[in-house]
Amino acid sequence: MLELWADGAAKSALVEFAARAVDSVAPEERVAVFDNDGTLWCEKPAYIQLDFLVRRIAEQVARDPALATEQPYTAAASGDLGWFGDAVTKHYDGDDSDLKLLAKAVLSANATITTEEHAARVNAFFADAKHPTLGRPYTACGYAPMIELLRYLESFGFTNYIVSGGGRDFMRPVTTSMYGVPPERVIGSSVGLIFQNGELLTTAQPEFLNDGPVKPVRIWARVGRRPIFAAGNSNGDIEMLQYTAAGSGPSLALLVHHDDAEREFAYDAGAESALQHVEKAGWTRASMRDDWKTVFSD
Amino acid sequence: MLELWADGAAKSALVEFAARAVDSVAPEERVAVFDNDGTLWCEKPAYIQLDFLVRRIAEQVARDPALATEQPYTAAASGDLGWFGDAVTKHYDGDDSDLKLLAKAVLSANATITTEEHAARVNAFFADAKHPTLGRPYTACGYAPMIELLRYLESFGFTNYIVSGGGRDFMRPVTTSMYGVPPERVIGSSVGLIFQNGELLTTAQPEFLNDGPVKPVRIWARVGRRPIFAAGNSNGDIEMLQYTAAGSGPSLALLVHHDDAEREFAYDAGAESALQHVEKAGWTRASMRDDWKTVFSD
Repeated sequence: MLELWADGAAKSALVEFAARAVDSVAPEERVAVFDNDGTLWCEKPAYIQLDFLVRRIAEQVARDPALATEQPYTAAASGDLGWFGDAVTKHYDGDDSDLKLLAKAVLSANATITTEEHAARVNAFFADAKHPTLGRPYTACGYAPMIELLRYLESFGFTNYIVSGGGRDFMRPVTTSMYGVPPERVIGSSVGLIFQNGELLTTAQPEFLNDGPVKPVRIWARVGRRPIFAAGNSNGDIEMLQYTAAGSGPSLALLVHHDDAEREFAYDAGAESALQHVEKAGWTRASMRDDWKTVFSD
Repeated sequence: MLELWADGAAKSALVEFAARAVDSVAPEERVAVFDNDGTLWCEKPAYIQLDFLVRRIAEQVARDPALATEQPYTAAASGDLGWFGDAVTKHYDGDDSDLKLLAKAVLSANATITTEEHAARVNAFFADAKHPTLGRPYTACGYAPMIELLRYLESFGFTNYIVSGGGRDFMRPVTTSMYGVPPERVIGSSVGLIFQNGELLTTAQPEFLNDGPVKPVRIWARVGRRPIFAAGNSNGDIEMLQYTAAGSGPSLALLVHHDDAEREFAYDAGAESALQHVEKAGWTRASMRDDWKTVFSD
């Protein structure tokens, strides 16, 4: 087991933790939580969900060309994907103006359809969308060693949850086939829904942005137990990892480190503070370059 | 099986539905949702949670007698439980003033403690609190035929959830032992939580009031599937039953009817509209008097 993990500190920590958990933690308390973007699947050069949303925004502007006078519809219509990245960069530089336009468009992109229709749009996207630089289908962009880890923990009686800043209903249609994690164990960001004539309709109202300190709150809301294992890769996972590590029994907080420019991407941006916690708080770092024998399955 | 159910239309409907579900619905889609107050356990003469909250409010005023100048602390201090019932009656008569005072006190009654401390308070309450007229412990106030139904559906591969207007974290400590439903499958009303120093703390801010049209929304949020079985007893369950019945495959919407003054309580108040739906929408009515051989286990 864990054959895709190279011998080393990370693999040893996982093996020792699983043994301790089986010895001293009741099966129903063996709860493991995994971030998704950058932890279970690739998040560069852009979030997979952003590709889904930009395609939808382009579709909206194609149907209603009058929209093209405003951002982000102008950029989507002209295929100027740089604008979307710049909106985020400008936000980090203190200028929220483009990000606000983007957020508004993103929230309304899939509004006022049933949850079933939303799932159909997501399925249509994943049926043929490919990663822009890796060339593989997005559904093959999951990290093989992490998927192996999901199965490994299950073999010790763990129940796995996904706890992501990504959209709950964007992930759900593919988490069972990609990760073996069913919809009821997917915790993510969401828009409000309304009930009408027997159906649930999406709205453009934000409900939860499942990031940072919101993650432990939503874990409790959904699970009602404190996890004993958590895996993340960025600053938005810090509180989830802290919550897990603060439990009274055995626990493991794992941080996936993107240091593999050759096989995936190398970046610390957005993870600086999380990486500092590895030293300060005794978390376990998984180096993609050194700890993973392979990144993707073939 | 279903030995506590008398032969009749309700029992037949349950048996036929279970057989149809097994024939034509994938196991993971066999989702059943149960309201709690009045559906799984007794809700008269007052919600069990109200007893928990009034005791806590009395405790607060005992520690800080200055609180007694305001309602509901005055009533709690003097043991005037009638005030609490009157607050609700006045609300139905269009006067919200007392209910607002009550809601404020209820929200702050267990604020600013960890989720673990909250669970300990709930456990302490259930350890010795008894039903005021039935004389039995609250933990023995679950309806035996409904608990039998939970097991019956499980035997056909169903996964049961509780979907209640009651407090999520008030129910969770007892749902496993009373109903065999673990915390991750308890959906209820909630206050906001905040994350601080590795712990989750309760606040006095309302988050969800899980009633009426909110129920199907929270079911989707938590489960990501439309249930095929739903049981309720009041107007607050109508939308959950409609959502269930509007699915494309086999479904059953069950309404527990409190018509048994001798063994429990007889009341249609708060269920008038739901009872009308039984006729209009083809839901199944379970008469406590006629369909249940016994109400409580002994």
